Amino acid sequence: MSSDARRCLVIVLAAGEGVRMRSSRPKVLHAVAGRPMIAHALAAAQEAGAATIAVVVGPDREDVAEAARKAAPGVEVFVQRERRGTAHAVLAAREAIARGFDDIVVTYADIPLIRSGTLAALRSALADGADLVALGFAPADPAGYGRLIERDGRLAAIREHKDATEAERGARLCNAGPMAFRGSDALAMLDAVTPMNAQQEYYLTDLVEIAAARGLAARALEAEEAEVMGVNDRVQLAAAEATMQARLRRAAMLAGATLIAPETVFLSWDTSVGRDVTIEPHVVIAPGVTIEDGATIHAFSHLEGARVGSGAQIGPYARLRPGADVATKARVGNFVEIKNAAIEAGAKVNHLTYIGDARIGAGANIGAGTITCNYDGFSKYKTIVGAGAFIGSNSSLVAPVTIGDGAYVGSGSVITKDVEPDALVVARGRQEARAGWAKAFREKKKKG
Amino acid sequence: MSSDARRCLVIVLAAGEGVRMRSSRPKVLHAVAGRPMIAHALAAAQEAGAATIAVVVGPDREDVAEAARKAAPGVEVFVQRERRGTAHAVLAAREAIARGFDDIVVTYADIPLIRSGTLAALRSALADGADLVALGFAPADPAGYGRLIERDGRLAAIREHKDATEAERGARLCNAGPMAFRGSDALAMLDAVTPMNAQQEYYLTDLVEIAAARGLAARALEAEEAEVMGVNDRVQLAAAEATMQARLRRAAMLAGATLIAPETVFLSWDTSVGRDVTIEPHVVIAPGVTIEDGATIHAFSHLEGARVGSGAQIGPYARLRPGADVATKARVGNFVEIKNAAIEAGAKVNHLTYIGDARIGAGANIGAGTITCNYDGFSKYKTIVGAGAFIGSNSSLVAPVTIGDGAYVGSGSVITKDVEPDALVVARGRQEARAGWAKAFREKKKKG
Amino acid sequence: MSSDARRCLVIVLAAGEGVRMRSSRPKVLHAVAGRPMIAHALAAAQEAGAATIAVVVGPDREDVAEAARKAAPGVEVFVQRERRGTAHAVLAAREAIARGFDDIVVTYADIPLIRSGTLAALRSALADGADLVALGFAPADPAGYGRLIERDGRLAAIREHKDATEAERGARLCNAGPMAFRGSDALAMLDAVTPMNAQQEYYLTDLVEIAAARGLAARALEAEEAEVMGVNDRVQLAAAEATMQARLRRAAMLAGATLIAPETVFLSWDTSVGRDVTIEPHVVIAPGVTIEDGATIHAFSHLEGARVGSGAQIGPYARLRPGADVATKARVGNFVEIKNAAIEAGAKVNHLTYIGDARIGAGANIGAGTITCNYDGFSKYKTIVGAGAFIGSNSSLVAPVTIGDGAYVGSGSVITKDVEPDALVVARGRQEARAGWAKAFREKKKKG
Repeated sequence: MSSDARRCLVIVLAAGEGVRMRSSRPKVLHAVAGRPMIAHALAAAQEAGAATIAVVVGPDREDVAEAARKAAPGVEVFVQRERRGTAHAVLAAREAIARGFDDIVVTYADIPLIRSGTLAALRSALADGADLVALGFAPADPAGYGRLIERDGRLAAIREHKDATEAERGARLCNAGPMAFRGSDALAMLDAVTPMNAQQEYYLTDLVEIAAARGLAARALEAEEAEVMGVNDRVQLAAAEATMQARLRRAAMLAGATLIAPETVFLSWDTSVGRDVTIEPHVVIAPGVTIEDGATIHAFSHLEGARVGSGAQIGPYARLRPGADVATKARVGNFVEIKNAAIEAGAKVNHLTYIGDARIGAGANIGAGTITCNYDGFSKYKTIVGAGAFIGSNSSLVAPVTIGDGAYVGSGSVITKDVEPDALVVARGRQEARAGWAKAFREKKKKG
Repeated sequence: MSSDARRCLVIVLAAGEGVRMRSSRPKVLHAVAGRPMIAHALAAAQEAGAATIAVVVGPDREDVAEAARKAAPGVEVFVQRERRGTAHAVLAAREAIARGFDDIVVTYADIPLIRSGTLAALRSALADGADLVALGFAPADPAGYGRLIERDGRLAAIREHKDATEAERGARLCNAGPMAFRGSDALAMLDAVTPMNAQQEYYLTDLVEIAAARGLAARALEAEEAEVMGVNDRVQLAAAEATMQARLRRAAMLAGATLIAPETVFLSWDTSVGRDVTIEPHVVIAPGVTIEDGATIHAFSHLEGARVGSGAQIGPYARLRPGADVATKARVGNFVEIKNAAIEAGAKVNHLTYIGDARIGAGANIGAGTITCNYDGFSKYKTIVGAGAFIGSNSSLVAPVTIGDGAYVGSGSVITKDVEPDALVVARGRQEARAGWAKAFREKKKKG
Repeated sequence: MSSDARRCLVIVLAAGEGVRMRSSRPKVLHAVAGRPMIAHALAAAQEAGAATIAVVVGPDREDVAEAARKAAPGVEVFVQRERRGTAHAVLAAREAIARGFDDIVVTYADIPLIRSGTLAALRSALADGADLVALGFAPADPAGYGRLIERDGRLAAIREHKDATEAERGARLCNAGPMAFRGSDALAMLDAVTPMNAQQEYYLTDLVEIAAARGLAARALEAEEAEVMGVNDRVQLAAAEATMQARLRRAAMLAGATLIAPETVFLSWDTSVGRDVTIEPHVVIAPGVTIEDGATIHAFSHLEGARVGSGAQIGPYARLRPGADVATKARVGNFVEIKNAAIEAGAKVNHLTYIGDARIGAGANIGAGTITCNYDGFSKYKTIVGAGAFIGSNSSLVAPVTIGDGAYVGSGSVITKDVEPDALVVARGRQEARAGWAKAFREKKKKG
């Protein structure tokens, strides 16, 4: 029976306290590439073909449960009432395990980089005849890690570093944490785990020796070190982020985007980047962004929840906030903020401008320093600028307001009433001069 | 005869398809440090003393030919009509080869980091008696590279990785691509190359065995791995960019510029940086920039086609666009864009300003939020601000307009007519208040 | 006697010329993490418990003396009149040495990364019975470094690379520079140093052999390579900066701050970062900044001399200049500059604004494009915005001016007179339209 045909329960352990994060937020809600760690773990479980996903959370962690449900609707949440070890945590999902699955895969919400393919490989190993598979890795520095002890081609035990003999410490693979075993053996084996220390903790790693004692075939599967790194403090969180960013950047480049300095570009887990897109140095892309073919994101730009149409030019120093929809060949230039606004094809918003809650028609030109005054302290209102309109520099468009197609707003105007198509509108003071005043003022000032 | 006295033809191969770039642009037109790869290769050829440079382009690649002619006027362009291997590509320049040169150097447009000194070293080796010199490198991981097979101190062959014996795979040097040989032997040897595979491709690497068979002295010359890296996809393009940036930054630092965080500063191939210049973190410098002694470029600045005079202060968050000419001790501050404008000595443009198509006189002070309204939707017009003038904040200067020396523009003015020297000018509305209105408005809004 | 009870003189050598910096500024005044190198060295001396600190500067280096006095009030400055070697430089402080200290520690102003703990360890070694302790390190590449020659568990000599035998070059430790010795032996040993070369230079390293000849117990103490790196050119200055930044970032993360991309965040030596602070990529923090618990610094922000209150939101693209005091839960958004101004609790300054010399009351809302016009070309004036006030977009507040609590300023107004609490104020031109003008204008323009 191929692994695809086998029904699989993935149990995601998310009950760790994360004390070393020194945070009031639970560890697994900290984000990597713009997505909470637990959501990464759940996505890998889904993509690995889990029929059911169980998440085990700590007591009073409704926030974690909610994040899990949001990331993976249908997930089942179990609470580990006391923190008494990993086997104890898995047994919090006893009810799910008891339902009878072919395969059970245990993974961790604080291993955010694990690939779905690796979880799938654990399943395949079961399909190929193994009874239990533990994930290992060959660390550059094994000190502190549990060792995967192999004998005669089988996995015999997982030994904690401190309990390992010198010979055992020479084992090539260390314990990465994730493990898979047959559902039919699961409860019997888990119930056979005995508490191991003063804290009366039950360790999942004991399953290996228990399986061996029962004559079951246990084996190890190797993963890359970077993929199975756990996150216990914020230095490790930053390391996980760096690895994830390297993956995302590489994928974007191989798909045909130029990242001039990829190490300075930050993508999100869901960033979509087209072909012949150029992203200059120093760009930050938060979640929800699509950049279509041929667009250029100039340096120092910040995008979130935005679409950039084909051939559009963004930045430098452009900020696209959620709801920004920049159409093909439009331009958003320096020190410009766009929020919840459509910039239609070929329109230009080039300098020092705030466009919020608006529609800027095709081919319109928005002068430097233009502000849509969309907020009166209580509500937000909409600004419409017609196709081909020209908004003179330093204008204020007081919403709700509509500037007709082809209309022309004089520089420095405050527009509070709708403007007819093709009209000129000006709203500013009259220029008045006083000859010699500045000279006299300077002389007075200098005298003190 | 020294290599200087020998007439040299450099053939730059630029006909590769670059499929792995996944780009509609030809590979060799992708840029490193702001200059197309082919221009880097041509510059190295020129600096190495080529009497004639021939570029071999693919069919229908007038864009590549044009870029080559722009980068190196006088270059001769040849077209390889079918892609049938590197020797076939070199023979596309048969007419040039037949003209009779002392030395022929073959290099590649997709090896953008090669130094002119390395090409010159190939020439020197010929001057020193070698008949053929192949460039090699000692890669960290040789898998996949052709091996330079040396016997009795001579280069005997270049063997493809897949064709090499285990012993041959142990060769220290791999094939970097570039090669030099005597012009007198060139056509005979090239015509002796036979096609090697199903695609009927002719390989330049065969020249080594052909030369050996003729009793000619072939040898290898070693280059650094970083220098001869080829660019076949955008991950490699980014790697080439990183190496080039490291070179440029190091040169700037050793010449007396402080780069606080060089890894975050991006220079261009032609950036000129003076002594005691400070460049803060996160700065991007596009082509055409000169920064004179003692200037400071603060963080998050972006410069292109601009001059920064001695002791001037730029940024943070300043954008200098082409034609920005900032004189000694002038200041351009945050969220300021300067385009095609002279900022004369000691003038200050400190905040949230757009200066385009303008001249700002010495010692003038441009208030925050000032905009030169230089565009009416059709044409650009010029703004002149006289020496020592004071432009109040949030003013709009509607070009064409001249503000006289020492004049004073009141805050928030829209200036549409010229202002006399030393005059005060104001153009704004009258302040009118309605007592209690805001309180009533809030109460109404709260009631909904 | 513990090292705490022993009176210690630390001599900081700061007389090197620093020619390879190619700078008109003395080398030791170049900064690392926002503080001159000499100040780092002095701080380490102070923290190591020095009773007295002597700095030896070159002739006519009043600038260095002044920087030393500013960084460490009470420091004694001595001038080395000619540059005749390190022992000669130490003897410039003869007067201080002669005063009689238990311990003398010699360190260097161009070793900015040395930890106070390392200097303290030198002192401890003396307290433990050593007569002289030289600091060593095990470099990745020892070429060029002096070697610490140990025999029978004692340090026998420091040998220059060029003078060392092949066996001596195999020594594990190289000379880092800093050295400690007993005050009672100091002058006798220093006076025993003889000049060594054509320049008649006296080397401090000779003290080791002099001590050995006198039967004194000399030993080596090992430091990390990164800690004792000297700075001789700007490439090394950048390397020192990178090491210091790595230290500062790591400390901030372990204390509970999330740095999403620590390699793009630049901190200063005195930056204070609270718990559950998030710092996004591409942030620069100059000296004098405190960020309180729960605050977020968004990408592309630049802070200097500023306080960010708990839960406040800064940026992206916010610049806080000296005197910016952003209270709890206030927001400073994109393209906003704050200078010498209090932004009180919950106030919002979200877009394209300059606030200088001002107080923005609690809960006030400052519209996009607002400018405080605080400067008249001669003096700076203050702007007060009352609690709960609403400043419409693109307004200019001409200081000195007070906007009362709860007042409402219409968009695009230029406010030159005080506004009563709860009043509405508008100061702008009347909107006037000319139908069809824009269409006619376009047609005229197109005709040319």
